[in-house]
Amino acid sequence: MKDFQDIILTGKLEADEKAPLERIAVSTVRDKLDEEVLIKGWVHQIRALGNLAFLLLRDRSGLVQVVLEGELAQLDLPLESAISLVGVVNEDERAPNGVEVRAKSLAIIAPALEPVPFELNKNGLKAGMEVLLDHRTISLRHPRNRAIFKVQDELLYAFRQYLRFQDFTEIHTPKLVSTGVEGGTELFEAQYFEKKAYLAQSPQFYKQMMVGAGLERVYEVGPVFRAEEHNTSRHLNEYVSLDVEIGFIRDEEELMDLEESLLRFVFLHLADSCREELRLFGVQAPDPYRIPRLPLAEAQALLRQEYKKTSPPGNLDPEGERLLSEYIRKKHRSDFVFITHYPVKKRPFYAMPREDDPQLTRSFDLLYNGLEVTTGGQRIHIYDKLVANLDRFGLNPSNFAHYLEVFKFGMPPHGGFAIGLERLTARLLGLDNVREASLFPRDRNRLAP
Amino acid sequence: MKDFQDIILTGKLEADEKAPLERIAVSTVRDKLDEEVLIKGWVHQIRALGNLAFLLLRDRSGLVQVVLEGELAQLDLPLESAISLVGVVNEDERAPNGVEVRAKSLAIIAPALEPVPFELNKNGLKAGMEVLLDHRTISLRHPRNRAIFKVQDELLYAFRQYLRFQDFTEIHTPKLVSTGVEGGTELFEAQYFEKKAYLAQSPQFYKQMMVGAGLERVYEVGPVFRAEEHNTSRHLNEYVSLDVEIGFIRDEEELMDLEESLLRFVFLHLADSCREELRLFGVQAPDPYRIPRLPLAEAQALLRQEYKKTSPPGNLDPEGERLLSEYIRKKHRSDFVFITHYPVKKRPFYAMPREDDPQLTRSFDLLYNGLEVTTGGQRIHIYDKLVANLDRFGLNPSNFAHYLEVFKFGMPPHGGFAIGLERLTARLLGLDNVREASLFPRDRNRLAP
Repeated sequence: MKDFQDIILTGKLEADEKAPLERIAVSTVRDKLDEEVLIKGWVHQIRALGNLAFLLLRDRSGLVQVVLEGELAQLDLPLESAISLVGVVNEDERAPNGVEVRAKSLAIIAPALEPVPFELNKNGLKAGMEVLLDHRTISLRHPRNRAIFKVQDELLYAFRQYLRFQDFTEIHTPKLVSTGVEGGTELFEAQYFEKKAYLAQSPQFYKQMMVGAGLERVYEVGPVFRAEEHNTSRHLNEYVSLDVEIGFIRDEEELMDLEESLLRFVFLHLADSCREELRLFGVQAPDPYRIPRLPLAEAQALLRQEYKKTSPPGNLDPEGERLLSEYIRKKHRSDFVFITHYPVKKRPFYAMPREDDPQLTRSFDLLYNGLEVTTGGQRIHIYDKLVANLDRFGLNPSNFAHYLEVFKFGMPPHGGFAIGLERLTARLLGLDNVREASLFPRDRNRLAP
Repeated sequence: MKDFQDIILTGKLEADEKAPLERIAVSTVRDKLDEEVLIKGWVHQIRALGNLAFLLLRDRSGLVQVVLEGELAQLDLPLESAISLVGVVNEDERAPNGVEVRAKSLAIIAPALEPVPFELNKNGLKAGMEVLLDHRTISLRHPRNRAIFKVQDELLYAFRQYLRFQDFTEIHTPKLVSTGVEGGTELFEAQYFEKKAYLAQSPQFYKQMMVGAGLERVYEVGPVFRAEEHNTSRHLNEYVSLDVEIGFIRDEEELMDLEESLLRFVFLHLADSCREELRLFGVQAPDPYRIPRLPLAEAQALLRQEYKKTSPPGNLDPEGERLLSEYIRKKHRSDFVFITHYPVKKRPFYAMPREDDPQLTRSFDLLYNGLEVTTGGQRIHIYDKLVANLDRFGLNPSNFAHYLEVFKFGMPPHGGFAIGLERLTARLLGLDNVREASLFPRDRNRLAP
């Protein structure tokens, strides 16, 4: 496999030739003090000081300082080249992590062919969002961006672990569908052979159907597609939705209890597994314990009273969400607030009305530091009520026959919620734009890379 | 919440009224011998014997026998109604699991409104595939179908756990894309505002880009879309792909080593976590240890020699795959075989050619009991080679600019593979049709439910 070691610059790369060494991640060199190690990664930074050069090598696990001496210090190593090297690990107080590798031999695996479009080895990235997204693969190499997706990976791990403990089954439902959840708005169209299809804007129907299919407790992590014209810092046209649905519930309070426990578990896990990453963003994982639950009408009254802020009928606008979160943080020391009792008119046809006030529903939103990160609620499980509601919403029940079938066969009381993965990540890390929490964001104008 | 207890039939449902009891899963009643329990689920079967009735109650965890006496035995309980009941757990040898619940009170949560379209309480489902799929939510209630998706859930759990141990990051890449992986074949088209978009037929480019973006080791579990006209028992037009990609590899042998270890781990986990489910299908989880690796030309020669079977140039056909697997099982006692050394002409432009024979690639397929479940291989990581190959394949490099960029900045040798989730599940359980392993299959004619 000589091909990979295009240029053996000096000495032999013993490790690859005779394989006495296994490559290790740079975050673990500290465990090998005074030993010889083989490390591989990218040239993050290089400082030449005459007969000596200091190189920062970056791999998936982080950075380590490498000392190059003599002939090795004279090498032309373009930034972001992939290299492989063998060296001895020394303790050195002056090195970034108190440890450095003294190189004995070095090979360029793949040289960078041009200068990078922006500097990757400074604290921040000095380029506009659009430029960074145009060169997304390169900008993701910045340690700050790497950290975002490490956090997201751990977040999802904890999300699944918690639900698994609670006996949930992970499901995978189709993204090519024949009808929209709410009858046609905000849907992307696709051609499915001779038929017209849509991209699923939510697994809503399917997750309810899976509860009724006997799985009772289900979740899905998958893409959803929204053909919204908005092009704001809080919208994506394709994003990852964390959908949860559960049967045999008492009411929507149980759903909020579940989401609260789930989020507590997730954030506890992040506090533990992403110490470095959270520090990099100067944030701490919150502990969403006993999140206040505020009926929408009270939230609106409070905004009028405290901030002279008028809200749109049956809803909050972005400014209202921000002000309300500010108030809740001050008064209740909570980064989160559930808004409950949304009116029937502002929720989908399947939202369960309240018995005490049939104009209001058993649905809720969750705001996190001023941004809606969840919509949820109890659903109507009684066949006749559901059909009547479709009529009331001007929808044709015959278009929903596949969804409705399960409601004829003992559908239990149920409900659930959906969390936007990118929004949750962005709120936690204090990112201004939700695009930063998507590997390859899709927005009103962007369909590439 | 009276609404949920539509009909309280006799006595009081103490548990829900005063909440002294928490609902338990029926699989755990054995732990509560002689105690009072609250259970909920669906009426799976009911046999009336005068003053006595035996009911099988089904919930997400399985079945339990319930004894109804006196007034309770006279109730009209349509099959598949959702019910809730309180009773005392007794040991009884004659009961299916040696244990039964003597009901004290019972409530119908939601009655079935019509007879089920096919019987759910017999060993098999006596209806054609199309009927079962038309009523998918109902047919999924059959314990055999429930078992398939329990296995699939555990399979994915183990898949992720293994890769996590190996320091892989889970990624989520867009499904709405501007170019196809291989330039336009088998793509579904979608309208993205003013632009034309496609549904991703694979996360191939993105997973390679993420290796180069510094994550090094990535995997994705997500939908892929193939506009293939085939309508066979082995094809789906939307399926779940388990994609793996890894950087800094030596060669494709390392990829096969990785897949082998991964599958061993997955099957070991299934043998342990899905004992009952595997027994239901009369299968055992295989141990894919030292899977034979056979160059394609040798496989073709072997088929000619042993079975007088001619293969299409540079490939195997379904019959060839079946016969070869038969041979390998007989000779090597393996359910699996890797086919290697595919010709350049039959693989995508990014497949790495071999130095010893540039007409052949470092790619492979994995056959499992006669069905291809994986395609993988080492990719070209050298920018100039990749651009030259695009030309050679008649593709315009400027259409691949976003993909190509990372190859200019130290792209390491890398490769990976993709496993079809439904195919893997179907092979393991001996299902004839891959549709059975998809909750809501999409095929040439089916876009619903």
